[in-house]
Amino acid sequence: MEIVMDAAALNGFLAREFPQVAGSYRVERSDAAGILARLAVDEAHLRPGGTVSGPSMFALADLAIYCAILARIGPVALAVTTNASIDFMRKPAAGRDLLAECRLLKLGRVLAVAEALIFSDGGQDPVARCSMTYSIPPK
Amino acid sequence: MEIVMDAAALNGFLAREFPQVAGSYRVERSDAAGILARLAVDEAHLRPGGTVSGPSMFALADLAIYCAILARIGPVALAVTTNASIDFMRKPAAGRDLLAECRLLKLGRVLAVAEALIFSDGGQDPVARCSMTYSIPPK
Amino acid sequence: MEIVMDAAALNGFLAREFPQVAGSYRVERSDAAGILARLAVDEAHLRPGGTVSGPSMFALADLAIYCAILARIGPVALAVTTNASIDFMRKPAAGRDLLAECRLLKLGRVLAVAEALIFSDGGQDPVARCSMTYSIPPK
Amino acid sequence: MEIVMDAAALNGFLAREFPQVAGSYRVERSDAAGILARLAVDEAHLRPGGTVSGPSMFALADLAIYCAILARIGPVALAVTTNASIDFMRKPAAGRDLLAECRLLKLGRVLAVAEALIFSDGGQDPVARCSMTYSIPPK
Repeated sequence: MEIVMDAAALNGFLAREFPQVAGSYRVERSDAAGILARLAVDEAHLRPGGTVSGPSMFALADLAIYCAILARIGPVALAVTTNASIDFMRKPAAGRDLLAECRLLKLGRVLAVAEALIFSDGGQDPVARCSMTYSIPPK
Repeated sequence: MEIVMDAAALNGFLAREFPQVAGSYRVERSDAAGILARLAVDEAHLRPGGTVSGPSMFALADLAIYCAILARIGPVALAVTTNASIDFMRKPAAGRDLLAECRLLKLGRVLAVAEALIFSDGGQDPVARCSMTYSIPPK
Repeated sequence: MEIVMDAAALNGFLAREFPQVAGSYRVERSDAAGILARLAVDEAHLRPGGTVSGPSMFALADLAIYCAILARIGPVALAVTTNASIDFMRKPAAGRDLLAECRLLKLGRVLAVAEALIFSDGGQDPVARCSMTYSIPPK
Repeated sequence: MEIVMDAAALNGFLAREFPQVAGSYRVERSDAAGILARLAVDEAHLRPGGTVSGPSMFALADLAIYCAILARIGPVALAVTTNASIDFMRKPAAGRDLLAECRLLKLGRVLAVAEALIFSDGGQDPVARCSMTYSIPPK
């Protein structure tokens, strides 16, 4: 299926629709393989000890998966997450951004399913794994 | 199993250990039935249209479940979430706080499992359901 | 919402539509609180050591949740599971049937969400917890 | 990490330890990339309409993930599933075996996490996605 929003289009969309959070995230790649998205980690994302918090990783996965869907169907702000499953597997490296590699597994008329792996920037082993279902509004 | 941290003890612990976020959350009840926790919703938790964001609901469930475990084992800051599954079922009511009702299902030597239902304050139907596994550090 | 299929109606439906498996399952209660369903455990459900297998517990939760939906919408054979999350928390007691207590959390036009706790017959602590989403076909 | 059980070793282990089910499953590949496992679909796995049942797909994913762990740690019969999340995305093709492609994401001292995609034999699009956590017994 065709990619209708590239990284620049997705970043523009996020800046317009989600101005509160868009500063922390950047879509680095949007192509047939999926989405690569970055969370610029700052103090607000940290837990005591310097680890990125679980909710921050959840938010990154959610954003990457949302963008993976929009990349195929265009800027439909009303697609909503209906289910998420996430495994936190390793402690993120201190002082590193997080990257989410996301791939769309299904794009149906009503539901879309995608999965993401989250890495510390420069790391080889995933710190988290996430799968989500989105409900797509009727046109 | 005995409750070793009541609501006041949990709120004190959160204020000391998680000062960045503690202002938004309050444990309202900690007893044999589990935890009732409140998210004082403000602008930072909203998505366009005034809905509370998914990551904010995830964070509330995570906090409530963490407190449900600490209520039984005492202030062990290092318990970490290893898995979470969440269903977003309804749109939260605009301008309302969120409440999480949490109950512990298992407290093992290594793993704890709990579930939470999230409601808009004053609402009857849950807006989200969440279950999580925590890994408990060896003593 | 009204209950349109009681336990007898659900057991009759299962016997007609799922004759291969219906002999192992029985709906014991279908009311406003939800469904209580029994798996009559036999050799086919066991793993080495006499424990009920994970897939057998999954199948029981799936059946109980399916019945919780049918109890409200009537005999719609085509409702399908789209997502399931299950936590296996304790070893089931040897030589006991399993019981699933299921409650419907959402019944939308397109999606239904329910959760179930599974117990060994006579046991107090849940051996597993499951939540599932079903997709409901358009009428 | 080294692969200590190849496909033949895993199939031998399954035949010895799980004789009730081993006839339906075959590990086709066990290497650094993970596990490829086959479910030889027969009448017992079908739902009305000829679709493979959800519990049968769950069982295939469970077996493939179990084998992915054993391939690294050797024949430890007591590793147990603690959590599973599964998305059923498409209807399996009628009259086809199912294949599970499984990859290990984490192998810790206490917990292992893996994910699997399930395909109809010959199909391009995954019919299901599954992730599981296993608890590994202390040596």
